[in-house]
Amino acid sequence: MVRVLLKCIAACGRVCGVVKGPHPSHWTGNLAMASLSTRSGTSPLDISGLYPPIATPFNKDESIAYDKLTNNLQRWNEIPFRGYVVQGSNGEYAYQTVEERVEMVRHVVQLCGDDKLIIAGSGCESTRETIEMTQKMADVGAKAVLVVTPCYYKGGMSNDALVHHFSVVADHSPIPIILYSVPSNTTIDLAPEVIIRLSEHPNIIGLKDSGGDISKLGNLVYMTKKNDFQILAGSAGFLLPAYVVGCVGGVCALGNFLGKEMCELERLYKEGRMAEAKDLQHRMVAPNACVTRRFGVPGLKVAMDWFGYYGGPTRSPLMPMSETDTKAMRDIFVRNGFLSN
Amino acid sequence: MVRVLLKCIAACGRVCGVVKGPHPSHWTGNLAMASLSTRSGTSPLDISGLYPPIATPFNKDESIAYDKLTNNLQRWNEIPFRGYVVQGSNGEYAYQTVEERVEMVRHVVQLCGDDKLIIAGSGCESTRETIEMTQKMADVGAKAVLVVTPCYYKGGMSNDALVHHFSVVADHSPIPIILYSVPSNTTIDLAPEVIIRLSEHPNIIGLKDSGGDISKLGNLVYMTKKNDFQILAGSAGFLLPAYVVGCVGGVCALGNFLGKEMCELERLYKEGRMAEAKDLQHRMVAPNACVTRRFGVPGLKVAMDWFGYYGGPTRSPLMPMSETDTKAMRDIFVRNGFLSN
Amino acid sequence: MVRVLLKCIAACGRVCGVVKGPHPSHWTGNLAMASLSTRSGTSPLDISGLYPPIATPFNKDESIAYDKLTNNLQRWNEIPFRGYVVQGSNGEYAYQTVEERVEMVRHVVQLCGDDKLIIAGSGCESTRETIEMTQKMADVGAKAVLVVTPCYYKGGMSNDALVHHFSVVADHSPIPIILYSVPSNTTIDLAPEVIIRLSEHPNIIGLKDSGGDISKLGNLVYMTKKNDFQILAGSAGFLLPAYVVGCVGGVCALGNFLGKEMCELERLYKEGRMAEAKDLQHRMVAPNACVTRRFGVPGLKVAMDWFGYYGGPTRSPLMPMSETDTKAMRDIFVRNGFLSN
Amino acid sequence: MVRVLLKCIAACGRVCGVVKGPHPSHWTGNLAMASLSTRSGTSPLDISGLYPPIATPFNKDESIAYDKLTNNLQRWNEIPFRGYVVQGSNGEYAYQTVEERVEMVRHVVQLCGDDKLIIAGSGCESTRETIEMTQKMADVGAKAVLVVTPCYYKGGMSNDALVHHFSVVADHSPIPIILYSVPSNTTIDLAPEVIIRLSEHPNIIGLKDSGGDISKLGNLVYMTKKNDFQILAGSAGFLLPAYVVGCVGGVCALGNFLGKEMCELERLYKEGRMAEAKDLQHRMVAPNACVTRRFGVPGLKVAMDWFGYYGGPTRSPLMPMSETDTKAMRDIFVRNGFLSN
Repeated sequence: MVRVLLKCIAACGRVCGVVKGPHPSHWTGNLAMASLSTRSGTSPLDISGLYPPIATPFNKDESIAYDKLTNNLQRWNEIPFRGYVVQGSNGEYAYQTVEERVEMVRHVVQLCGDDKLIIAGSGCESTRETIEMTQKMADVGAKAVLVVTPCYYKGGMSNDALVHHFSVVADHSPIPIILYSVPSNTTIDLAPEVIIRLSEHPNIIGLKDSGGDISKLGNLVYMTKKNDFQILAGSAGFLLPAYVVGCVGGVCALGNFLGKEMCELERLYKEGRMAEAKDLQHRMVAPNACVTRRFGVPGLKVAMDWFGYYGGPTRSPLMPMSETDTKAMRDIFVRNGFLSN
Repeated sequence: MVRVLLKCIAACGRVCGVVKGPHPSHWTGNLAMASLSTRSGTSPLDISGLYPPIATPFNKDESIAYDKLTNNLQRWNEIPFRGYVVQGSNGEYAYQTVEERVEMVRHVVQLCGDDKLIIAGSGCESTRETIEMTQKMADVGAKAVLVVTPCYYKGGMSNDALVHHFSVVADHSPIPIILYSVPSNTTIDLAPEVIIRLSEHPNIIGLKDSGGDISKLGNLVYMTKKNDFQILAGSAGFLLPAYVVGCVGGVCALGNFLGKEMCELERLYKEGRMAEAKDLQHRMVAPNACVTRRFGVPGLKVAMDWFGYYGGPTRSPLMPMSETDTKAMRDIFVRNGFLSN
Repeated sequence: MVRVLLKCIAACGRVCGVVKGPHPSHWTGNLAMASLSTRSGTSPLDISGLYPPIATPFNKDESIAYDKLTNNLQRWNEIPFRGYVVQGSNGEYAYQTVEERVEMVRHVVQLCGDDKLIIAGSGCESTRETIEMTQKMADVGAKAVLVVTPCYYKGGMSNDALVHHFSVVADHSPIPIILYSVPSNTTIDLAPEVIIRLSEHPNIIGLKDSGGDISKLGNLVYMTKKNDFQILAGSAGFLLPAYVVGCVGGVCALGNFLGKEMCELERLYKEGRMAEAKDLQHRMVAPNACVTRRFGVPGLKVAMDWFGYYGGPTRSPLMPMSETDTKAMRDIFVRNGFLSN
Repeated sequence: MVRVLLKCIAACGRVCGVVKGPHPSHWTGNLAMASLSTRSGTSPLDISGLYPPIATPFNKDESIAYDKLTNNLQRWNEIPFRGYVVQGSNGEYAYQTVEERVEMVRHVVQLCGDDKLIIAGSGCESTRETIEMTQKMADVGAKAVLVVTPCYYKGGMSNDALVHHFSVVADHSPIPIILYSVPSNTTIDLAPEVIIRLSEHPNIIGLKDSGGDISKLGNLVYMTKKNDFQILAGSAGFLLPAYVVGCVGGVCALGNFLGKEMCELERLYKEGRMAEAKDLQHRMVAPNACVTRRFGVPGLKVAMDWFGYYGGPTRSPLMPMSETDTKAMRDIFVRNGFLSN
């Protein structure tokens, strides 16, 4: 990997996989490397279906609790998920070292890689670290990577900068790339024009969008159709509407503990049982909001504990939920029929 | 009206229709006046269906062009709309005097009030002016009013303040109230808890939500079901998903010039022809974005001109669209199959 | 006025005071009308000094309490203010009718117009209403007007739109214009380039900026120096730093009840007693925050009551302060040495 | 270090340096460890003065150019700076590995540590990584660390979470902590109440605030005076006003290439030559804006090249400045008298 990278740098003067041509649309036409094989002629990797972005279980001392992870996976394996997203935002990836991020993916691949599609979060702030992390995730067996928008230098994250970043990462990646837009954490809402341009890259096969703008999702499905681009809903709060406008699945925190119900919603939609699907969707919105924007990962982990999974503590600076909040969340789960007081 | 208002003030010390009881949930149980008759026992006014929030046509000197309005209405009358929203945001209500706002509603009622449900925008910044404007709209024949969130003193628009405002207006209104949340203009996104509380008021029968958060809409349908509360999508960009999660119709700028297509989308949805509905929805997103958040009312009026309606100039400080923008918008309409170059 | 306006409309097709020339920089060179006399050759009206943006006192029934206003003015007159701003944001102008706004200015002019410079808030959403309101304010004796940025159609308030709006208003105004940027209410922070362009207009003599970005203020003083442009701090929280970077005074809510102290700060600064000025400034920040962004006009009116002025109720939907908030505010005033428990 | 950490975890169940007592104000009274010695009785480290947050020079292949760094430092050493901030936002710390961040600090300490105060940026997203990084920075000779607010899980960064994070880091740090609030990158504006609470911690000695809210800075100086807390302006755009309200110095990007002028401003202020200070401050605002919020680190590095320092490329995804932007920036430097075309 390092060798390839250096070669590119020598040629174009920036971290980039292309020997010639202008940035940032430099990939068009002359893509070298692995990516070429991914989509010319053959279809891209099919990523349709549902995935929980799995929580990372920690022990009390904040070390990763691999035994608990194994237990959780064994239970998740009984649910008709398509696969798992490992080291996404709900996995507290931002609080883990490079080694931890990779090691956990390796663990999940070894345990479930034969039956489930393993997608690894490999995004870092810099392009070069993202390239290296992506390579490492491929090396331990991930089938695709989810790459979040860099976001620290917000003022510099122009559309051109983002197109450049993702396309260079995709140029260098041996496995397909899924774009990841999660403005509640990054404040960067990947613009439709950026996504549409990137959808033409043979090694960029899809998008997870957690922003929840259903008009945007519908428009993106329509505008990227010719590129076999696959869009995944980033939250169970709008899973049914997302299917209705053409999304192919979802990566939803709720799947960490209400996976069966989520898969049931998918089934109802596919069988055209819209009224039942609507009723189930309705019941999911408030619990979903609890474990995402309202109480975040701490809420998610408390809910996992309620449903027999291991949630456990988060890493600091995320704080444990207060008793008041826990009580309020419990009420919502009860009111929506997912728990009996 | 003035008499009633003064009486209330004497009783509770604030602009309020209730003789006794604490603010802001003071209406519970002891509602006096017109509102009482609206929902106890009988059903509330059914507002399901589609409405264009009609543009206000201006002459070159910025006076209202009533002849052009009449022409537009005659064409709109051929479309199976449920009714018209007059003096909404797309009607540039914020740029009109009290007299103009009322006079235009009177005109539309006289021309179409027998066949169409006329909903008038009556929101003002102060509670007292909103009460007076609402009364005036009722006097000229509006069947319901759309009341936008006050927004100038943002810091003071707490949930309690908004609950108080809307409930007092509803207490005093002889016709039903529809809440109106349009954060792109007001920066105030009416919170679910406010809407849920207000949905219990017998004279508040629905909500137009232009925010586009489909999870919120689904949740609101679910949480207000027991109150016969009716939710209207505020934009054609998410009309199909809104129907899917239980909205009963829409108030959509696009209806000003693509009304037939909008009504066709409603029909496809109701007949369960989801694939066709999705295709039509897909084509609507980008044109809809042009005439709403991208180019606003100036874009809307240019599009109306293209489709044979009178759009004409906006009032200043809204500026005419630039040639570049007009060209870009035209391209989008052509690409989505609504115009042939 | 109406006659002039119509003539312009006939000539240039938009609400505009100029017979020929392109928008929006049409005023350069060929300014007709009253504005011509204001700055060519002679100096513009000197607006340096301190002003309270006076609160509008209401009776319990929310009518204007003119007797209380008179009492307040008599007390304010004993303080070395330069003048009064009437119908600014702190005056709840957004909750008053056209007639009320004008009538209150007339009252203040009659009472204090000989000794104090009366500046009237005349901004409305539309350009045409702002022009009319400005004329009315001049007619009742205001010496200058403060014109707030229109803000309802945020997406349409481009720099060009704002330049056009203010310059057209200035073209038509018989008295000088002061720009007014108050992003906490409008969400529109008038851009430096807009202000710099407008500072060249002979009838636009200054700016009240409540945003609090001291770098921006310093830069604006520097960039508009050649145009005799005068900048007023919009809040007492940064009055001393504003003087230090070249502002000529301030329009500060705090002046409604701590006017003597505010004028003392100005004196200390002018005498070069920087350490004492700093100490006084320090004590002002927290009380000032209470009556502006933290508790708004309700906080301001409570504080006025504490200091022997008439504050009284606000108009609805602004709500009375809670007891908890009132207590918290009182503590801050005590801790900073302005009240003794 | 690790040993201490484990002991704490055993005691209080979270990453924390305190054996007993409630979170998050647990440090009061019973502080163990190194921090105790820092401020009880003796004065805290004096950090007053000016610092450039030095840019990290990269070669074309994006590796760190240590030779260029040495050259830059030799030139900076001729300027009366108090010291250097290494691995701040302008140092592109977010794009560097743990090893790179530490190694660069070691390099600067070895070269300049005898004459200059070296402050290292040690903030990471997680509390545990921040503790480890802080220890490493101390090990290579940094005299204090600058700790940025964690920001990825924005929804979880409550005031309590931030107080907990910083106080635990301070508990474990062998050298003093300076809080770092830079909302343009993090969107988190450290609240006054958080800063005031943290100012009581014996090992938290100051704040770098880049937000530019001068009222906030004045209030913080006032409220933390009794704790010997030292506040540094985070930008040269408001350096003079910051001094006026009681800040003790600044960490300003502009110092990377206009250090002499910055120190001159400090001198003028200290000698009471306010008019000259104002003139110099005025000239700095626009160039400063160019290398901070307008063009960011790419702008900063271009400017460094202009002034004879090595700026060089940024790391990707930051993009090189366009020619148009470069030209616009050049014009501003010329117009303000810092370059002659």
